[in-house]
Amino acid sequence: MDAYERIMRNAEEVVTDEEVRELAADPAGKRAYVGYEPSGVLHLGHLLTANKLIDLQEAGLEVVVLLADVHAYLNGKGTFEEIRETAEQMKAQFIAYGIDEDSAEFVYGSEFQLEKEYTLDLHALELETTLNRAQRAMAEIQGGETAKVSHVVYPLMQTLDIEYLDLDLAVGGIDQRKVHMLAREELPELGYEVRPALHTPIVADLTTGEGKMSSSEGVTISMEDSTDELEEKVNSAFCPPTADPEGDLENPVLELFEYHVFPRFSEIVVERPDEYGGNVTYEQYESLEADLESGELHPADAKGTLASYLDELIAPGREKLREIRS
Amino acid sequence: MDAYERIMRNAEEVVTDEEVRELAADPAGKRAYVGYEPSGVLHLGHLLTANKLIDLQEAGLEVVVLLADVHAYLNGKGTFEEIRETAEQMKAQFIAYGIDEDSAEFVYGSEFQLEKEYTLDLHALELETTLNRAQRAMAEIQGGETAKVSHVVYPLMQTLDIEYLDLDLAVGGIDQRKVHMLAREELPELGYEVRPALHTPIVADLTTGEGKMSSSEGVTISMEDSTDELEEKVNSAFCPPTADPEGDLENPVLELFEYHVFPRFSEIVVERPDEYGGNVTYEQYESLEADLESGELHPADAKGTLASYLDELIAPGREKLREIRS
Repeated sequence: MDAYERIMRNAEEVVTDEEVRELAADPAGKRAYVGYEPSGVLHLGHLLTANKLIDLQEAGLEVVVLLADVHAYLNGKGTFEEIRETAEQMKAQFIAYGIDEDSAEFVYGSEFQLEKEYTLDLHALELETTLNRAQRAMAEIQGGETAKVSHVVYPLMQTLDIEYLDLDLAVGGIDQRKVHMLAREELPELGYEVRPALHTPIVADLTTGEGKMSSSEGVTISMEDSTDELEEKVNSAFCPPTADPEGDLENPVLELFEYHVFPRFSEIVVERPDEYGGNVTYEQYESLEADLESGELHPADAKGTLASYLDELIAPGREKLREIRS
Repeated sequence: MDAYERIMRNAEEVVTDEEVRELAADPAGKRAYVGYEPSGVLHLGHLLTANKLIDLQEAGLEVVVLLADVHAYLNGKGTFEEIRETAEQMKAQFIAYGIDEDSAEFVYGSEFQLEKEYTLDLHALELETTLNRAQRAMAEIQGGETAKVSHVVYPLMQTLDIEYLDLDLAVGGIDQRKVHMLAREELPELGYEVRPALHTPIVADLTTGEGKMSSSEGVTISMEDSTDELEEKVNSAFCPPTADPEGDLENPVLELFEYHVFPRFSEIVVERPDEYGGNVTYEQYESLEADLESGELHPADAKGTLASYLDELIAPGREKLREIRS
């Protein structure tokens, strides 16, 4: 897999492909980022973009993890000191998970988002950007009475972050695409360069296969889960014997294999007693999917295998959390 | 005239009367402010609120003049240095006009509006305030495609200015009332005190008596006008022989007497040849208005008198401008 292929693996979209090809051709010293609101415990939502950061490091880029403490502070998540403690736990889990510390920079929003120059640039962007344009960039379109002024300011902060963190690639879930498109339009208004964006898919709700997996609603898997808890969650997951269930449903078990497991292991072994067909080894996600579709692989075996590999992935972070808390 | 009466003179409204009465009862050390975008030359729009600042000083308050250099910078009015030079000229003209330097503080927005604490508070307000609420506070309601994000952020900055300048009274033209009402609602959300507001009237367009006098459209009188230019402008003014012309029209000549001339002179003398009735002296605006209504005072004599008193008012500022520019 060459640098371009590794950057593109499992990307839902890139904007633009040409710009990403240029980046892949000369990745040394190039910087890609994801921003996270500090959280004490990582869950699969964080890990999906973390997988992409690991891909990017393997492709030769440096990665920047923005720990958005200013936003956490504004959202009432504690004092800056408390938030910093939470964020340091987050950082430790990312490193335990596999982000290479040597080519990663962890940056707090408060290190630059409250500086005069940034604030002036933010006001300049506010003056350049119509309210309508900013509203179209809101993560979720909100009605007039629930949308806050912050909902039109935050996308402009994200726009500036890309400049102030000196980035070459903005990475986020596909729910960030509207913000990144705004950034591409608005950065040149301030005389700054346009940067490409890469968007990861979003996994469906584990139990129903509907909508998206969310830490606030529904079930997610986190660094806190014990092996037993993880197994129980995966065993209760929605897993019809197809990659394309009816209607808008998705198969979250297959999605977790595709986006979480296969990128991190060179082969996946499904362990089965001989009377159920014996062990089977997959080197590619597509083969596993095909076997599930054909009935060669039973959903129960797929789930058991998924649980065991996810457990292996989160084990170092779970251990790190234990250390921190002890 | 006691402190309360002087504060209230020519105010279009105060919010609330009770709070202003409290202020008037103990004005020592109390601070009132007006904010201005720095401009090299003062015009009647500035002077109307300046008259109120003089009233407030005479009532025993301290006044704060906010020189909004950050906004001027964002509006492309030059570098901070250039804007500061413009603002210093503005300050010199205000003092020449009659603002008492000893109980006045001139503050640049950039001295506090770009500080971290202010910026954090601004973001906190953005998170508290719905987009709809902020839009209702915009100076002029603007359509979705012309309104900028800055139009919903600036009212929140004005809200914070009231706290950060440690004010006891916010003063502005009546076009500022929506912003001040927002400030009254939102300051307590951040644990800050509500402050009263005082709004001055807005003079109608000099030539037509329609709408409002504006330095950008139509004719205004400024510190740059020579005695001749000033006379010519006043002589071309709309001045029907009534204080209440038909429809939405106003009599700007009477308004200028009421809001600009009478507050600054204890008596106004209309000089007329004996065959036109001879000189007549007014101590109160109402008497002059009544004479214009009854035909005792001819509009041409009113205009001539207005021009001569306005000329006296702007003469020191005009002289100061000449000094600065030479």
